[in-house]
Amino acid sequence: MRDVSIIGIGQIPVREHWSHSLQVLGAEAVVLALQDAGVERPGALYVGNMLSGQISAQENLGALIADHAGLRGIEALKIEAACASGAAALRVGYGAVAGGLHDVVVACGVEKMTDAMVDETTAALMSAGDAIYEGEHGLSFVALNALLMQRYMHEYGYTREAFAGFSVNAHRNAVHNPNAMFRRAITAETFGRAKMVSAPVSLLDSSAIADGAAAVVLAPTELARRNGLPGVRITGSAVATDSVALHDRQDPLVLSAAIESAQRAYAQAGRGPSDMDFFELHDAFTIMAALSLEACGFAEKGQGARLAMEDAIAPTGRIPISTMGGLKARGHPVGATGLYQVVEATLQLRGEAGDAQIAGCRVGMTQSIGGSGANVITHILERVDG
Amino acid sequence: MRDVSIIGIGQIPVREHWSHSLQVLGAEAVVLALQDAGVERPGALYVGNMLSGQISAQENLGALIADHAGLRGIEALKIEAACASGAAALRVGYGAVAGGLHDVVVACGVEKMTDAMVDETTAALMSAGDAIYEGEHGLSFVALNALLMQRYMHEYGYTREAFAGFSVNAHRNAVHNPNAMFRRAITAETFGRAKMVSAPVSLLDSSAIADGAAAVVLAPTELARRNGLPGVRITGSAVATDSVALHDRQDPLVLSAAIESAQRAYAQAGRGPSDMDFFELHDAFTIMAALSLEACGFAEKGQGARLAMEDAIAPTGRIPISTMGGLKARGHPVGATGLYQVVEATLQLRGEAGDAQIAGCRVGMTQSIGGSGANVITHILERVDG
Repeated sequence: MRDVSIIGIGQIPVREHWSHSLQVLGAEAVVLALQDAGVERPGALYVGNMLSGQISAQENLGALIADHAGLRGIEALKIEAACASGAAALRVGYGAVAGGLHDVVVACGVEKMTDAMVDETTAALMSAGDAIYEGEHGLSFVALNALLMQRYMHEYGYTREAFAGFSVNAHRNAVHNPNAMFRRAITAETFGRAKMVSAPVSLLDSSAIADGAAAVVLAPTELARRNGLPGVRITGSAVATDSVALHDRQDPLVLSAAIESAQRAYAQAGRGPSDMDFFELHDAFTIMAALSLEACGFAEKGQGARLAMEDAIAPTGRIPISTMGGLKARGHPVGATGLYQVVEATLQLRGEAGDAQIAGCRVGMTQSIGGSGANVITHILERVDG
Repeated sequence: MRDVSIIGIGQIPVREHWSHSLQVLGAEAVVLALQDAGVERPGALYVGNMLSGQISAQENLGALIADHAGLRGIEALKIEAACASGAAALRVGYGAVAGGLHDVVVACGVEKMTDAMVDETTAALMSAGDAIYEGEHGLSFVALNALLMQRYMHEYGYTREAFAGFSVNAHRNAVHNPNAMFRRAITAETFGRAKMVSAPVSLLDSSAIADGAAAVVLAPTELARRNGLPGVRITGSAVATDSVALHDRQDPLVLSAAIESAQRAYAQAGRGPSDMDFFELHDAFTIMAALSLEACGFAEKGQGARLAMEDAIAPTGRIPISTMGGLKARGHPVGATGLYQVVEATLQLRGEAGDAQIAGCRVGMTQSIGGSGANVITHILERVDG
């Protein structure tokens, strides 16, 4: 298979975009990414999105966004894997270029969550869980994460304050990201006083409902090199799944799909946790950040929260995470998030992350989690020597 | 890229499956296809589905159906292209095997449409159109097709009776298909008396709301041959798009995406319309059958309906269509339909279509249409000699 590079990136600020439709948001990100790559017409567009049917009464997003981006006619499909939909679109795009189906493709993630009332959006988000065994019994997605966080605190003897560092780091980093939703630092004290959403998950443990879109252009590394394009290589790409319902797992505090997904990506890239200069993980809730760090080999079981307590996740720490705000402070327009992560990782590896720059970084990892660990997608990105 | 074959097929009867959940329907088709192929664990599962979020409050279908089919852990994603979602899943699976991402994958289409009231399902189906320019103004999907049919009759001087042959042929062929929803023949007179849904589209012009699931197992042709598996080769695979809204097209009676999609598939396979022994087309409405035949080169513009009037579409005709009932009489569980078409085409090419068998067929084509021509996916299938 062919080596694949990211040759262009585009993103719009994560906001409540009241005046922009789904297709306008998506098309803007696609056009920005194509401009960045200097490409006019890609071979295909893969759109990651989770909620358009439920919130905007709109499916067929592939054709819709292709047309609005001036690409009428090209191959275009929507890819869905709950909150990992953006990463899923990248995965399909990666496969298409690596395998030779197309030379140049765009992977775009888009989500418009604010076109419905908050309770409707909350209900729609629960479609990431198991509708029959979880949703119908009244569990919201926040409640699922609250059960996990409660269990984690119980098993390993933490209080909720142990998670403050994740939120403090994310908000601190978002200050330097013009596309982030919440560009203000918070303190551990602010975290301690935050209102409860579903105990022990507080407002400051949770990512916010938001609108956004991000996109990348992919091409064979060889082709990018010949055209003198600055590229970031994708050296690992993997998807793994688990039961959708939490109760069906042997140990709910072990994200088996995250372990499997990371292991496959590490194996493909010939890398391991110690090679990573940063890790854009799926901190939709602080507990997910802790579990993801453990699943990917950055901490022992039950020790993920400790990395936050010790500030090892800071930009200058052992394993920087959420370097441009993460899901918590950049915002989490669910189907777009996987591509925001990859756009940010690309900025870091290109050395274009501004004040959020991780000094001298060469290898980074992104991980998106669909559902409470049901579908996990990992990518490893590497700076091209030049 | 590698030559790809279908090495296993599975389908469940198209019915109102009140007692079966979405994941049970999907998993059944996947397990049947794996059994048919003699494969235990594929590398990936791609699930085609359009409406699960809106009707069943359930997304994340990749992980959900993988788990219910006993495949927890494997790569699994949902693919959406409105009513062409099943074909879209096949397209992604084809690319994964052809390109080398996986050796063996399953493409499954599943839809459960009867878990909502009919008006809710009708509204959900409209998400295949343009929500802002069409849906919000009150157009249903049937109404969009009624506009097209009216225009076609006006431009070319047909009455609605000209379309009877499509429905008569589909119902006649479905009699021989145990998985079809409507296994009873109708006459042109029955068609003439059918109740109007949205004039001139009558009940007998329209495919019905239904539940169903179908799946295929794909592998490199070389691998299938080595293992002595009976295979049907995929020699052409293409996706093309158009504007989602009808008003945005130069001539609404020209399905540009169907033309483009067919041309790409023909070019890849080195085939043309005259090579086709049958054509499983997207007769969600009789007008779509006429337009699809024209777009794919089986009739001149405005002459598609004539093929039905002359019965050239019968099993013994020049270009047999809907050989096992088509969308009209087999039923149209939207996201599953693309894979029902391919499963039926495979049965034909294997010579296992029973009383519906097209004698001596060697090459066939399937085409799925998402929206009113917005996303069109074509596959060409060929019998393996041996």
